[in-house]
Amino acid sequence: MQRIEHRACFGGWQNVYEHASATLGCTMRFAIYLPPQAADGPVPVLYWLSGLTCNEQNFITKAGAQRYAAEHGIAIVCPDTSPRGDGVADAEGYDLGKGAGFYVNATQAPWAAHYRMHDYVVVELPALIEANFPVTASRSISGHSMGGHGALVLALRNPGRYRSVSAFSPIVAPSKVPWGERALTAYLGEDRESWKAWDACELVKQASDKLPLLVDQGGDDEFLDGQLRPQLLQAAAVAAGHPLQLRMRPGYDHSYYFIASFIGEHVAHHAAALRSGAAAES
Amino acid sequence: MQRIEHRACFGGWQNVYEHASATLGCTMRFAIYLPPQAADGPVPVLYWLSGLTCNEQNFITKAGAQRYAAEHGIAIVCPDTSPRGDGVADAEGYDLGKGAGFYVNATQAPWAAHYRMHDYVVVELPALIEANFPVTASRSISGHSMGGHGALVLALRNPGRYRSVSAFSPIVAPSKVPWGERALTAYLGEDRESWKAWDACELVKQASDKLPLLVDQGGDDEFLDGQLRPQLLQAAAVAAGHPLQLRMRPGYDHSYYFIASFIGEHVAHHAAALRSGAAAES
Repeated sequence: MQRIEHRACFGGWQNVYEHASATLGCTMRFAIYLPPQAADGPVPVLYWLSGLTCNEQNFITKAGAQRYAAEHGIAIVCPDTSPRGDGVADAEGYDLGKGAGFYVNATQAPWAAHYRMHDYVVVELPALIEANFPVTASRSISGHSMGGHGALVLALRNPGRYRSVSAFSPIVAPSKVPWGERALTAYLGEDRESWKAWDACELVKQASDKLPLLVDQGGDDEFLDGQLRPQLLQAAAVAAGHPLQLRMRPGYDHSYYFIASFIGEHVAHHAAALRSGAAAES
Repeated sequence: MQRIEHRACFGGWQNVYEHASATLGCTMRFAIYLPPQAADGPVPVLYWLSGLTCNEQNFITKAGAQRYAAEHGIAIVCPDTSPRGDGVADAEGYDLGKGAGFYVNATQAPWAAHYRMHDYVVVELPALIEANFPVTASRSISGHSMGGHGALVLALRNPGRYRSVSAFSPIVAPSKVPWGERALTAYLGEDRESWKAWDACELVKQASDKLPLLVDQGGDDEFLDGQLRPQLLQAAAVAAGHPLQLRMRPGYDHSYYFIASFIGEHVAHHAAALRSGAAAES
């Protein structure tokens, strides 16, 4: 593991590291913000999953979340959005291949060789983080767009692993929208039954752990009706009796200006969950 | 004037416009953040000048200043850092020509035809802003690096025009450092006497209006000793009896992570100055 960026920020440190991922079979980068409190002892961790075309840089340069992480004493870890490197399969377009891993474990060639972002984010990366940084095993997860999908799916698939989950503008039903249909067909194959394990609207139907879902959605988001469709998650949550707070934000679009405007509320939400109960998790 | 971006942000609007500048003889872009309070009546304006290689985007995407502008009810206007377009002179390297206007009025060929960033920022742009947006004529100014130089020089050259001035990591003595020497030689010619009117350390010697200067400087800034040299401004201010608050910030570098960490304090500083006294300025 090699540190490639180290920048003072709100009294803590915004760092970026590079490491060899055994899960993904390639070199990966991740960002970690260590708040000032980490100098005095371990702090809990919020994982942030970014959207299509992003890498570990977008959130740390544009969201302004470090201020809130410093206030609440929380580390923030931002992985990349796909495996990377010359030997990794890719495709035409921004919505498949590099920069578009969709946080699934691919089963189809040529993707299955490297595209295992679920296992990387849920298992390998936290183990690396918890072995090498002053953090506890208390974790929360959030993300934007494809990363909002990732946060919801990873939390719903892994009960007890995250104290809290939230999403900005998530793709709530990848099985039913163009971005998701293209990606799941490629990564998982034509059989739509196999997609259900990676679709938040399907997962809430059978979730035994009723971890509350917090979702913020811009009312003027250019992808609202075509790709995001939060009303599908609302209907599924109501039908399943799964707690969901869906906040529509009139006027806001799909950009980081939207995330920046409300990330403080999300960090506070996760901080409350991370402060409660015991420090060690599954 | 044409609006090319319009994004909800912290209850207000982050907009970007394009217009034909008579002063610069080219098409220019500027960003303006209008806080929520601007919907109810005119608000004062903070002008932000960016550094080498930047345009109107850097500050609005990376500094996180909109939160503080919304809290205090202040608009923020960010011009580009040089004239732009195919007909505008340019040079090799990032520190001369496009993206490197240094906020001077050039007198030398080929620069004099377009490089009049002082007059653009001090005269043309505020007139445009005040004629077209819900703002008062109360102005403050700040900036980073080359833009910190610009903020200090524009405030010192134009007594009464700005209520307050601050800078992050400014080039305080362009006459004495490589970035400044290259730019001033090109824009103003070999006669170093002519440079004095564009050098903050020279201008404080004769400033009749003792507008206090607020400067934040990262202690681990990679350009500290070679290009910035804030101790020269401190010595000049002490000799002239000009009020200067120079705050060294250990560990911080030259990046936007530094600006983001302290921009809230600068916005609060300008808000206090903008709230005091009458609304109309020279």
